[in-house]
Amino acid sequence: MVYRLEKINLSHGSGGLAMQELIKNIFLKKLYNPILSTLDDSAVIDLKIKRIAFTTDSFVVSPIFFKGADIGKLAVCGTINDLVVEGAIPRFISLGLILEEGLEFFILEKIIDSIAKTAKRENVYVVTGDLKVVEKGACDKIFINTSGLGELIRDDLSIKKIKPTDKIIISGSIGEHGLSVLSGRKNQGIDFGIKSDCSSLAGLILPLIKKNKGIKFMRDPTRGGLAGTLNEISSAIKYSILLEEEKIPIKDKVRSASELLGIDPFYLANEGKAVLVVDKKEAQSILKDLHKHPLGKDSAIIGEVIEEKRGKVLLKTITSGIRILEPPIEDLLPRIC
Amino acid sequence: MVYRLEKINLSHGSGGLAMQELIKNIFLKKLYNPILSTLDDSAVIDLKIKRIAFTTDSFVVSPIFFKGADIGKLAVCGTINDLVVEGAIPRFISLGLILEEGLEFFILEKIIDSIAKTAKRENVYVVTGDLKVVEKGACDKIFINTSGLGELIRDDLSIKKIKPTDKIIISGSIGEHGLSVLSGRKNQGIDFGIKSDCSSLAGLILPLIKKNKGIKFMRDPTRGGLAGTLNEISSAIKYSILLEEEKIPIKDKVRSASELLGIDPFYLANEGKAVLVVDKKEAQSILKDLHKHPLGKDSAIIGEVIEEKRGKVLLKTITSGIRILEPPIEDLLPRIC
Repeated sequence: MVYRLEKINLSHGSGGLAMQELIKNIFLKKLYNPILSTLDDSAVIDLKIKRIAFTTDSFVVSPIFFKGADIGKLAVCGTINDLVVEGAIPRFISLGLILEEGLEFFILEKIIDSIAKTAKRENVYVVTGDLKVVEKGACDKIFINTSGLGELIRDDLSIKKIKPTDKIIISGSIGEHGLSVLSGRKNQGIDFGIKSDCSSLAGLILPLIKKNKGIKFMRDPTRGGLAGTLNEISSAIKYSILLEEEKIPIKDKVRSASELLGIDPFYLANEGKAVLVVDKKEAQSILKDLHKHPLGKDSAIIGEVIEEKRGKVLLKTITSGIRILEPPIEDLLPRIC
Repeated sequence: MVYRLEKINLSHGSGGLAMQELIKNIFLKKLYNPILSTLDDSAVIDLKIKRIAFTTDSFVVSPIFFKGADIGKLAVCGTINDLVVEGAIPRFISLGLILEEGLEFFILEKIIDSIAKTAKRENVYVVTGDLKVVEKGACDKIFINTSGLGELIRDDLSIKKIKPTDKIIISGSIGEHGLSVLSGRKNQGIDFGIKSDCSSLAGLILPLIKKNKGIKFMRDPTRGGLAGTLNEISSAIKYSILLEEEKIPIKDKVRSASELLGIDPFYLANEGKAVLVVDKKEAQSILKDLHKHPLGKDSAIIGEVIEEKRGKVLLKTITSGIRILEPPIEDLLPRIC
């Protein structure tokens, strides 16, 4: 029944038969798991432990398809990564969709396929969902909220443990997500051929944190980029962080596109990278472990926490000058995630 | 700093300083609790039990303020009620906001105040959140996602336990939320003076389900109304439900407004009502308990499950005819929640 219609209309969000058909024919079919299949208003879950991480993220990225990923994969990976950097194994996610009337069915299907594929690969269940349809013009195509539950395997990760001499590691090259989304915008007109780094960090990070107690704190540098994330850390710990520009992995394509656009790649969003703050004694062995994983092959020690109380992020440039990486104030790129 | 600006702009969703100021000055101040205050990407939670209910809901109601409630109260109560009817004590909620550039600060503040007040009264913590700002025209003012976690106190509630002779109870009069939102729309122009029934069912339902094992299954009849909810039940159990029109509580104002508009009140959304399916032997004592609570004073036994396998909802009208309440197909009112 649903398949004879070509576009989403308001009846698909009505709570009536059209919505039930849509849920059965698309969501339940593609996202099937034993918990979701009850289709109750809430999912009933048995957790293995009582200490959990809980996170939420709304995704409004534009365009919804871009080189390397789409809004569906982004939503699942984004929520997985928020749990992972907190020290938790991602287990269950919810899926809240807001659709614009007139959205083509095949687009919705492609996005749900992408969500299903990512969730399956990462062994995460979509256990509960909600669907709203708004009239044309009341939202831009599709917005997705994913909230996530994870079982905490490290509850000693804390920003409070960071101290001078700790090393800063980035798990790979920066700026790719930001430039991929930018290239995808019609009005930009330049395709730099850069793929978003959008990916789940679970496979890279979870085995690592089980093993390495020297990891003190982690964050994924999404909106605001590396500079944003490090400024949040430095202002919270009230010590400065000194980075070495030449150590920070940036792909040539990203470097030249950034120069062309006059954009600072340190502020560009990443969607598959982690910043780790680690004890200096274990930094080398952690780096070695990171290098063994495909997602961590470009990881590098890029700086350290220093005994300086301004709480700033300082960059030692390639020419050995020092510049301050200020916290981002305004948006470099709205709707990046 | 935030207070000098009068409207939301894109920088408030940037992940930079403007966003941090907004979070500190409005969200953290109004929604303060020990878990939220860490402002981590995920909240770390210690649950009392490992068996939980998990739910998500996006709210796109238009208008965002209406007689009796607003989108903030609606979002918190809606998610609380989804947990309660599943047999869980609501404990933690997430808050995902999508704001339209240009939204006035005082409106955002009023909504956050409403969320804070409702959460506090219901003893629920907002523990994690996310904020996105989209350009003018890309969403209609404000959309809210609330996901919720509750601790299950009854894990024997199940649609599968329903059998013929079970009684159907509604916890109060129907149709008020739907008509309140309808009246609030500018282009409707008629104010029927009807207040939304938007409220948390926790105080009414949780003590009741602890005590009364005769309660087999519950739902809150929101989108699609009483007719929608009962059709979902009857089609799942494959027995019909017979309602007695004269027993269904409807306020005079709702009845006359529905007649004037040519709308069937059985399909109007409710946001503070529960449908209970109960063992007939305990129906009277459950009703007595419901009547003791202010939110349950108009509750009534409105029908029963009958030995008829069509899985339909039948209405015995006041004139003793029988009509079928078909499942809703299209939306009576889009953006009702």
